[in-house]
Amino acid sequence: MPPTPDMIPIWRDGDAVWIVDQRRLPVVWEEHRIDTVAQMAEAIRTLAVRGAPAIGIAGAYGYWIAAQEILAGSPEIAAPAMLARLADAAAQLRTTRPTAVNLGWALDKMHAKASELLTVTMVAPLLIGALGVEAQHIAESDLQMCRLIGSSGAVLIQHGEGILTHCNAGGLATGGYGTALGVIRAAHAMDLDIHVFVDETRPLGQGARLTTYELQQAGIPFTLITDSMAGSVMASGRIQRVITGADRIAANGDAVNKIGTYGVAVLAKYHGIPFHIAAPSSTVDLSLASGDLIPIEERDATEVHAHYDASDYFAQVPVFNPAFDMIPHELIASIITEQGVLEPPYEGRLAEHLLSA
Amino acid sequence: MPPTPDMIPIWRDGDAVWIVDQRRLPVVWEEHRIDTVAQMAEAIRTLAVRGAPAIGIAGAYGYWIAAQEILAGSPEIAAPAMLARLADAAAQLRTTRPTAVNLGWALDKMHAKASELLTVTMVAPLLIGALGVEAQHIAESDLQMCRLIGSSGAVLIQHGEGILTHCNAGGLATGGYGTALGVIRAAHAMDLDIHVFVDETRPLGQGARLTTYELQQAGIPFTLITDSMAGSVMASGRIQRVITGADRIAANGDAVNKIGTYGVAVLAKYHGIPFHIAAPSSTVDLSLASGDLIPIEERDATEVHAHYDASDYFAQVPVFNPAFDMIPHELIASIITEQGVLEPPYEGRLAEHLLSA
Repeated sequence: MPPTPDMIPIWRDGDAVWIVDQRRLPVVWEEHRIDTVAQMAEAIRTLAVRGAPAIGIAGAYGYWIAAQEILAGSPEIAAPAMLARLADAAAQLRTTRPTAVNLGWALDKMHAKASELLTVTMVAPLLIGALGVEAQHIAESDLQMCRLIGSSGAVLIQHGEGILTHCNAGGLATGGYGTALGVIRAAHAMDLDIHVFVDETRPLGQGARLTTYELQQAGIPFTLITDSMAGSVMASGRIQRVITGADRIAANGDAVNKIGTYGVAVLAKYHGIPFHIAAPSSTVDLSLASGDLIPIEERDATEVHAHYDASDYFAQVPVFNPAFDMIPHELIASIITEQGVLEPPYEGRLAEHLLSA
Repeated sequence: MPPTPDMIPIWRDGDAVWIVDQRRLPVVWEEHRIDTVAQMAEAIRTLAVRGAPAIGIAGAYGYWIAAQEILAGSPEIAAPAMLARLADAAAQLRTTRPTAVNLGWALDKMHAKASELLTVTMVAPLLIGALGVEAQHIAESDLQMCRLIGSSGAVLIQHGEGILTHCNAGGLATGGYGTALGVIRAAHAMDLDIHVFVDETRPLGQGARLTTYELQQAGIPFTLITDSMAGSVMASGRIQRVITGADRIAANGDAVNKIGTYGVAVLAKYHGIPFHIAAPSSTVDLSLASGDLIPIEERDATEVHAHYDASDYFAQVPVFNPAFDMIPHELIASIITEQGVLEPPYEGRLAEHLLSA
């Protein structure tokens, strides 16, 4: 389907799952049909699908595809064997990327649903139908959570603010609409006359390629800057607020997000600018006491130097390429979820906040 | 000539001036002979020659070339007309780039020398010879100043330090050896077991392309990171010191340097890491009371998005592309010049420091 206003990056069409290849944006809106777990795992690993909530959704749909694959190959499979093979598929999907917790969260949800279903039925169409509904529910719930994040967060925004964002926490990173961009979309819809500064977000340019694309399509005024300009644009007085997404939030409010977010949060603190995290509850991992326990994915060095077209030279250049960094809770002015805006202290209050519906 | 250990980027060979094209590094060491003022102005404007001290040297050699051009075209020119045409050439060179003060400084020095010579002789070979010696003296003095900056600054470095640098303040940016990289070269020569973290330095990648190249050639251990990683690498405890060059330093110690340096200085302050500026006295502009008076060059938006290969898309994307930012003096732990290490307060003491030889 063509891009929706909410920029939905992954969708179901009957028994099929489709994604837009985010590596090709903004040059072309290229759709791929995902028919196997291996294809979905590859799409997540290579960042054709990216963004913590979106890879959760991709995991859920991948699990559904696994059920279809298993039953097509072994129509007479017994329930315990089916569940074991689904667990294998979930493990295959889970290991694609380590940092975002939403992937594990969605796979656990799908596996719990499958376990429940397999105690009552082994009728293939019923199983597949119910798992498809569950995956679709995860996707649609995420979109609804993003809308709630948007309306919750927009009340923070004052008329005429300049807002900096890093990476892409937009519709493309979620079930649609976006988290940080959800707040920005909602503020724009309220005619708050905001202007967005978009960090390019090296090495892969999700800000330059994806966030500018979403803002342009939505008609929201923005300016693209390199990551290195954030400090001086703050010093110039043009930024009143920073909002980013998160890939995982620990119980004490520490958050992990795209590499560079930590630096932006420190710069915001230095300039007295509030820094907010916007994320759905599926991003919160209450099992981890603090952010230093969140695994940080390191990716291939070629991401950093590919565009210099000097691969022989750079093959000998030592490169450090962590994909994420950790923002300690003391730098976070508030965490915006579908339940509203939570201000510090976060310790011990995040669980309660998420249950406050 | 092939790259020297000092990485001299511009040199005289008889009556000719040569540069290495820094836009082509590290892929190839490509040399261009500069025969006209227009060619030198173009080389500066397009960043074939870059770095504040190096463009000062380019200006000096460009002035010498102007004298050769004028006398070749008008051998019988009178002294006042000659001086007027040299002033025009200086103006043409001066307007190529506004931020670095070294360009104006070198042109003023050449013009003073020409004025002095023209009161005593109009013999073309004498004039051209003397101006060539003056330009070469500016270049060689800069190399010597860089060596002094290196030995002055190296005494600050402790054994085993991790040192972050931004952009390229190396031999290529100067008459050779470098300012920030001069300190690093000197510390390495003292076997201080340092490790350099190199900011990529978007949008043009002078860190990734030029600083890694100089460090690799010099055998100094380093790691390339994107600009957005500086904060989290500091937080990880791997950086004990930041050293960068400067394009202009005001009388109160405020410095202007490559875009992103301000952000790095703020991050260093937050992490309790000393941030140093290394620059020759030709970079100091005592005529400006503070850094906010230093003009900041803005360059074309294509620099930011060219490598995304989506020029049709990006043609409609608003981009802000300042080439420099300003580091207020309160973020600068010391200014390292050829006269030694000056610590705060800088106000009123910078002039005295520069005269302290």
